[in-house]
Amino acid sequence: MTRLRTVACLLPLAALTLAQSPTPQVFGYRDFSQQAKWDKSFMAVPDAALAGQHLKTLTSAPHWASSPEDYATAVYVADKFKAAGLETQIVPYKVLLNKPVKIIVEAFDADGKKIMSGPTPEHVDPNKFGGDPFQDDPRILPAFNGSSPSGDVTAEVIYANYGTLADFQQLTKLGVSVKGKIVLVRYGENFRGIKTYIAQQYGAVGVLIYSDPADDGFFRGDMYPRGPYRPETGVQRGSIQFLPIYPGDPTTPGVASTLDLPDSKRIPVDKLENNQPSIPTNPLSYHDAAPILKALGGAESPRDWQGALPFTYHLGAGGTHGTPPKITVHMHLDQDIALRTIWDVEGRIPGTDNSDDWVVAGNHRDAWVYGAVDPNSGTAAMLETVHGLGDLLKQGWKPQRTIVICSWDAEEEGLIGSTEWAEQHEKVLAHAVAYFNTDVGVAGPNFDAAAVPSLKQFVREVTKEVASPKGGTVYDQWKADQAAPPPTRRTRRPTEATDSDVHIGTLGSGSDYTPFIQHLGVPSTDIGSEGPYGVYHSVFDNYNWFTKFADPTFVYEQQQARVFGLEILHMADADVLPYDYQLYGKEIVGYLEAAQKQATTKNFTLDFAPALAAANRFAAAGTAIRATQSTPPANPTTLNQSLRNAEGALLNPEGLPKRSWYKHTIYAPGEFTGYAAVVIPGVNEGIDAPDAPRAQSQLAALTAALNRSATILENANKEAAK
Amino acid sequence: MTRLRTVACLLPLAALTLAQSPTPQVFGYRDFSQQAKWDKSFMAVPDAALAGQHLKTLTSAPHWASSPEDYATAVYVADKFKAAGLETQIVPYKVLLNKPVKIIVEAFDADGKKIMSGPTPEHVDPNKFGGDPFQDDPRILPAFNGSSPSGDVTAEVIYANYGTLADFQQLTKLGVSVKGKIVLVRYGENFRGIKTYIAQQYGAVGVLIYSDPADDGFFRGDMYPRGPYRPETGVQRGSIQFLPIYPGDPTTPGVASTLDLPDSKRIPVDKLENNQPSIPTNPLSYHDAAPILKALGGAESPRDWQGALPFTYHLGAGGTHGTPPKITVHMHLDQDIALRTIWDVEGRIPGTDNSDDWVVAGNHRDAWVYGAVDPNSGTAAMLETVHGLGDLLKQGWKPQRTIVICSWDAEEEGLIGSTEWAEQHEKVLAHAVAYFNTDVGVAGPNFDAAAVPSLKQFVREVTKEVASPKGGTVYDQWKADQAAPPPTRRTRRPTEATDSDVHIGTLGSGSDYTPFIQHLGVPSTDIGSEGPYGVYHSVFDNYNWFTKFADPTFVYEQQQARVFGLEILHMADADVLPYDYQLYGKEIVGYLEAAQKQATTKNFTLDFAPALAAANRFAAAGTAIRATQSTPPANPTTLNQSLRNAEGALLNPEGLPKRSWYKHTIYAPGEFTGYAAVVIPGVNEGIDAPDAPRAQSQLAALTAALNRSATILENANKEAAK
Repeated sequence: MTRLRTVACLLPLAALTLAQSPTPQVFGYRDFSQQAKWDKSFMAVPDAALAGQHLKTLTSAPHWASSPEDYATAVYVADKFKAAGLETQIVPYKVLLNKPVKIIVEAFDADGKKIMSGPTPEHVDPNKFGGDPFQDDPRILPAFNGSSPSGDVTAEVIYANYGTLADFQQLTKLGVSVKGKIVLVRYGENFRGIKTYIAQQYGAVGVLIYSDPADDGFFRGDMYPRGPYRPETGVQRGSIQFLPIYPGDPTTPGVASTLDLPDSKRIPVDKLENNQPSIPTNPLSYHDAAPILKALGGAESPRDWQGALPFTYHLGAGGTHGTPPKITVHMHLDQDIALRTIWDVEGRIPGTDNSDDWVVAGNHRDAWVYGAVDPNSGTAAMLETVHGLGDLLKQGWKPQRTIVICSWDAEEEGLIGSTEWAEQHEKVLAHAVAYFNTDVGVAGPNFDAAAVPSLKQFVREVTKEVASPKGGTVYDQWKADQAAPPPTRRTRRPTEATDSDVHIGTLGSGSDYTPFIQHLGVPSTDIGSEGPYGVYHSVFDNYNWFTKFADPTFVYEQQQARVFGLEILHMADADVLPYDYQLYGKEIVGYLEAAQKQATTKNFTLDFAPALAAANRFAAAGTAIRATQSTPPANPTTLNQSLRNAEGALLNPEGLPKRSWYKHTIYAPGEFTGYAAVVIPGVNEGIDAPDAPRAQSQLAALTAALNRSATILENANKEAAK
Repeated sequence: MTRLRTVACLLPLAALTLAQSPTPQVFGYRDFSQQAKWDKSFMAVPDAALAGQHLKTLTSAPHWASSPEDYATAVYVADKFKAAGLETQIVPYKVLLNKPVKIIVEAFDADGKKIMSGPTPEHVDPNKFGGDPFQDDPRILPAFNGSSPSGDVTAEVIYANYGTLADFQQLTKLGVSVKGKIVLVRYGENFRGIKTYIAQQYGAVGVLIYSDPADDGFFRGDMYPRGPYRPETGVQRGSIQFLPIYPGDPTTPGVASTLDLPDSKRIPVDKLENNQPSIPTNPLSYHDAAPILKALGGAESPRDWQGALPFTYHLGAGGTHGTPPKITVHMHLDQDIALRTIWDVEGRIPGTDNSDDWVVAGNHRDAWVYGAVDPNSGTAAMLETVHGLGDLLKQGWKPQRTIVICSWDAEEEGLIGSTEWAEQHEKVLAHAVAYFNTDVGVAGPNFDAAAVPSLKQFVREVTKEVASPKGGTVYDQWKADQAAPPPTRRTRRPTEATDSDVHIGTLGSGSDYTPFIQHLGVPSTDIGSEGPYGVYHSVFDNYNWFTKFADPTFVYEQQQARVFGLEILHMADADVLPYDYQLYGKEIVGYLEAAQKQATTKNFTLDFAPALAAANRFAAAGTAIRATQSTPPANPTTLNQSLRNAEGALLNPEGLPKRSWYKHTIYAPGEFTGYAAVVIPGVNEGIDAPDAPRAQSQLAALTAALNRSATILENANKEAAK
């Protein structure tokens, strides 16, 4: 405890030192000096040790969404919100969740001899490297995939690498069919639901997804509890919902699953094929996958499909050495699929302007098991952010814009708590000025962020105010980390060259910003602090792992509480909304030029001219409005409304082809990636399909959106020039 | 047998078809038409099935140099030489060789419990994938390293990756000392003797070299007998002589170890530290290395030091987790180190010109065990070359220049048979016009070559005349193979851009061309046909492996016999020696420019101007003499002497610093690479050391050599213009 306190006391000093430098010019503020004082008062509050206590409490039991333990965490969070002075309520929804009743996965060799009987419970040797104090809790559910149907199938096995579209296409090229087979794939490269999405289209009858040690196990570094990587029996749970079609409760796309929603407004469970897989899918540890993989015959897998298990990987079919031995797997998944109650927690600080220009910030609370990193490192930081906001309230501070802090439930099953809440508040959220997300708050010491381009500069400015436990500011360390050569660098590698500043990623999916930015057009950011983290979605993502490998003294918790808090404070009180449409415009022009090149390589004759003209017009309007934002009118209300509406205008009310829930014309999770964003998705997926007419009509929709948005910015400029 | 015959009959037809095209212009010939006829006659002879029979006979028993079985192979080869009409003799030498009497390598954990007791005999399951019919021969020696001293050491272990200079430097940076330790390194990246050379300099007391499955085992593809890669118990034997200091019999550098050489002319065995390691070194299979590596504590190894064994690799020391467990290894090597008799076989076809302008061609015959690929695939091909030459002799052909075909012994222990023979014939070899080497004749279907630049075009021309079993010519397939994307390409990746033709490698060391080119300045080439070959220097490099994975119908044997034969025929009968000094000059200019860049990055102020001037002068003379070579004088004798002397003039009689046996100023095996060539070695190793004065004085020696050679070419040009 002494050690924790020492560090916790040291860091506010560093923050104070930074704040003593002359007040910086901050985009959006006429005069930042008053805000700088509030920032300073705020930053003194978030406490490392308290964050540690929150984390310990929140992760004391497995708290899968809808479980009693999940409800207990909702009550804990609500209590902290109330104690800080927030107008707090627990908001329940009734949503479809599967709970495993019985999970059997077993494998047999050609003679019918059982070569694997699983799933093996997650367990590490209690006598080595301190063991694990959490692994034996009887409340731990068997490892399973959210959204998997029940099923009882026995079939031969084909190994399909990461199960990407390219992997399945290569199997076809090699003459290997997965029709009627169980596909064994490894985690990585794409969202796990996409693996099933593609396998099902190729005719597979089941999917097993295992964690190869090449990707997050011993090949990367020492296994837990010796090091931070996934141990032999470690399993990655996770949803296989078809997230890129729509997230949230599968039975209510576009509608909030409130407790009083009549069943007649829900899609019946047997009609959910659009969003729910039809073939049983289950995760495996490498302990259970290895005997199957090892026994597979047929062709040698392509050499870049080889993982780190100690034998040569084969496909299970194909090749020139005759019929391979008949390895079969029996999967028997008995899922209890039912409507279950989940609980978001919502806390408000009413703004003085009485407008609907909400600043929303959120983090999910539910976990596959203990969820120390994912998500409760974020929850603990958020609670210390709330602690800081509460202290400001006591000091007399009142935000201009209403602040809404949310603790989401059932994110793991498909962003359900956030999606239902966003769908419920759809109308008012059309005015919300920002959504700030944090999910994995802290997995290690390396800050990283993703954001809509209009908020990239905003995030950078905030990180320049916060001290890093490593010395200097968070911004300094973030920049140094990105400049380091690959073996050191832990965060995203810069890929875009639109600006030369520290790189900020593109919002894809896999966390709760998706309903806000991609369905409703609320400008969003996502922050976290990363590190070597191999126990994702396993029993071992627990308090013991966290305090050994992620943040033993919780100083990165404190850092994240500060960064998250400053995002909220600045957005709530900025005179002018600090959106950078100049950079946004530049990036869109870049996206279009890249798509045009891609279309050329496919010999498509698409007319990019109108879209490019619209993007350039949007970029020019963005440059002009930046000048207006720097010298705003006395009453910036109309300007601010226009700035917000410019983002909203990028939505296409018809949504994307095949997935109308996704309405944003610039960003969506890729149909075949899931996590990773596809930019200008209608156009790029039309080109990839390849489907030239679709690409052309999507270009038209994009052009219209860009022209709508440019008109809004141009008019705002004219108005301000009056 | 039918299948073999069919293929063997088909291919000469293909060759005939190729020869029917109009007679090409071939560099060195005034009129190629007569030679084209001899070529055609020659190429009809080499027989795939006969090559297979040679291979089967030569590899029927382990035939380590100096063993009775080795002598039997010498007799077999001599008989074939004689049958073809060559003037044949078996040439014995008396050389220092170590033979293992007892090899013990065992490992103990911190409690003194034995965790490994080795070496484990090389063995695969006889009931799977056909097993291996050769593995149980009692004449197989335990796996050992040639040139290792005896020793009995017990020490803790440090893992040092590939044991390169950079690896040892990185250990030092990580605060890990190998002083007093046994170093465990993996095969690859450099010549194995260099691993011991550096380990010894860093204070290690022993070295264990193991084969990591990442480098030639299951990670690359299926293990023998299922596939061509090294099985679990497979060991790579091999010499750890300090080859870059000097090769050959350690007791007689620069002198031939003839049977009558008095002991007084030999360096005593206890004074051989210059060329012989002083610390015991032994190879291991991954079966035996894995328990040691797995038990090592201390710091995690750098992540690019991780191999394919199923655990995280550690260094054995360092790191932040306190004192690692004390893993010790006991190595007890009892070597019988003695002068032993070896047997080269030499066969001559006297030339009509009665000159000393010999064409020498050779391949070694001794093997660590059976040596089906290394070296007897080359021997079998060479015997079919001799078969073809014999047929030409019967048809009345007589070569202009004397041809000497050699079957070397004790190459594996350090190029001993070839070095002693070359040292014995030093004077006459100053006139030899070429040395053609083949070692691994056939490991698979992908032709590849290395050569001194003056002979690159010569090799390409020869391969354009020979049919490939894959269709087209060897040249066509070679080119297609190099153009293929990396996963398909098996041969060397082009790195130099001096000419845009098919890439030919640079001669480093590790085979018998070294005494010829690097000690005596005889222009050399090295050819082979490559493929996935993971059983190098193990018991499993045997006839069973060869016929399963390398060349089941011996058609590549036939191809190599033809290419090798055409090299000899063309060099023996060319009107003008077909050396390309234009390309040679260009390459040297490129080497100097690269070295200059390297010197600049080290802030060396070296004067490259004289060397660059000399290289450009040499290149210009090369361009001029190419014209002369194309329209030669009626009597080209003087021109040919000059052409040959131009290569000889590139020797520096003083040799390289620290290793005066190496006299060539342009090529040497690298002091810290062994296999890989260092170009303009005096200069580049001076820069790398870093030692600016040495680099400058080596630049001067190089400048002098280039000017000497340029003068010779210029004078020859003047003479021819008269």
